[in-house]
Amino acid sequence: MQEIVLYTYDWVPEPPRGFVRDLRLRWALEEAGLPYRVASVSFKERGPDHIAHQPFGQIPWLTDGELSIFESGAMLLHVAEKSEALMPGDTRGRSEVREWLFAALASVEAATQPWSIMKFSGFDGDNPAWPFFDNFVDLRLKRMEAVLSEHEWLVATRFTVADILMADVLRLMDRFGKLAEYPACKAYVTRATARPAFIKAHADQLAHFAAAD
Amino acid sequence: MQEIVLYTYDWVPEPPRGFVRDLRLRWALEEAGLPYRVASVSFKERGPDHIAHQPFGQIPWLTDGELSIFESGAMLLHVAEKSEALMPGDTRGRSEVREWLFAALASVEAATQPWSIMKFSGFDGDNPAWPFFDNFVDLRLKRMEAVLSEHEWLVATRFTVADILMADVLRLMDRFGKLAEYPACKAYVTRATARPAFIKAHADQLAHFAAAD
Repeated sequence: MQEIVLYTYDWVPEPPRGFVRDLRLRWALEEAGLPYRVASVSFKERGPDHIAHQPFGQIPWLTDGELSIFESGAMLLHVAEKSEALMPGDTRGRSEVREWLFAALASVEAATQPWSIMKFSGFDGDNPAWPFFDNFVDLRLKRMEAVLSEHEWLVATRFTVADILMADVLRLMDRFGKLAEYPACKAYVTRATARPAFIKAHADQLAHFAAAD
Repeated sequence: MQEIVLYTYDWVPEPPRGFVRDLRLRWALEEAGLPYRVASVSFKERGPDHIAHQPFGQIPWLTDGELSIFESGAMLLHVAEKSEALMPGDTRGRSEVREWLFAALASVEAATQPWSIMKFSGFDGDNPAWPFFDNFVDLRLKRMEAVLSEHEWLVATRFTVADILMADVLRLMDRFGKLAEYPACKAYVTRATARPAFIKAHADQLAHFAAAD
């Protein structure tokens, strides 16, 4: 089997370490037991070769033979199609994995990302826009709480790649204490991040960036 | 071929009409020439049956035989796999369509949605968070401008389902005059929305909501 190459920055500042998005792919590749290596690109200089692979100048992207793929969701779907460890084989299960991959990004992270930006930038508190963005996150978390109160994992009573993405999105909310009122969401994050593949992926990311200090 | 059923609200207030997300699916189904019908669900009362199909209490969702699918991206991918009118048949082309579907949502709409929320709610102007969100959109539009200056369509020199999603995301920016400094993005929106399938989908959505007034 040809080797997948996962591209991430050579270095990032301290605060995002452990949350940089290559983690989602490391985690999936570890769960699937697929051979891969991690390659570094410059954090400080994002030249034409970077842009040719990732048009927004971000990371991660991956190559798999002649394919070069960007966007976490698309990469996760690609990797999942290589391994039943990440996605069931039946039509309904595969369809549900896809909808939850999109939901993690377009419904949940769409709300948590502006919230995180406001929080990081100190625009929480008395900024008049804060209650709107805070309520937007609560709206989504209430619905996820209902889903996760009834399901151990999102799809087909088993762990799938959709859980990698959703748990990683919710994990950032947990970091800021936002899951305190959402015990099923919090338990889900705890359950997902207790998996050996997450623990290895997380440690590997920290070691990768620490090596560049 | 079994009929696809697209679910949307029975009614919405005036401002979002022409921009409600069922339009993305109407457009794709028209491009593909697939048989479908539109069914209404209550805008005001979103009960357990609604939540069972769309866990966030939103629209659209669709059914295709025994499958029920939510999330625009997942639905568009499902429809695209039924028609070469929406997606090329080769591995690279299909992979690129998928990455651009995710990019339209997770990279571009992730920036334009908080911008639109701030704008709609009157938090633009002197809100201290506004420059951040405005710059976030510019960061993405600059990169899309570079891409669309070199490509008529996103993938494989032909129109695909990824253009439906990206053009619809950019169309909302155009509505607010935000594409004035991005002529390639503006021309792309003009080109996409001149397609007969968009024109019919747009008119059908307006008629659907007007019928409920």
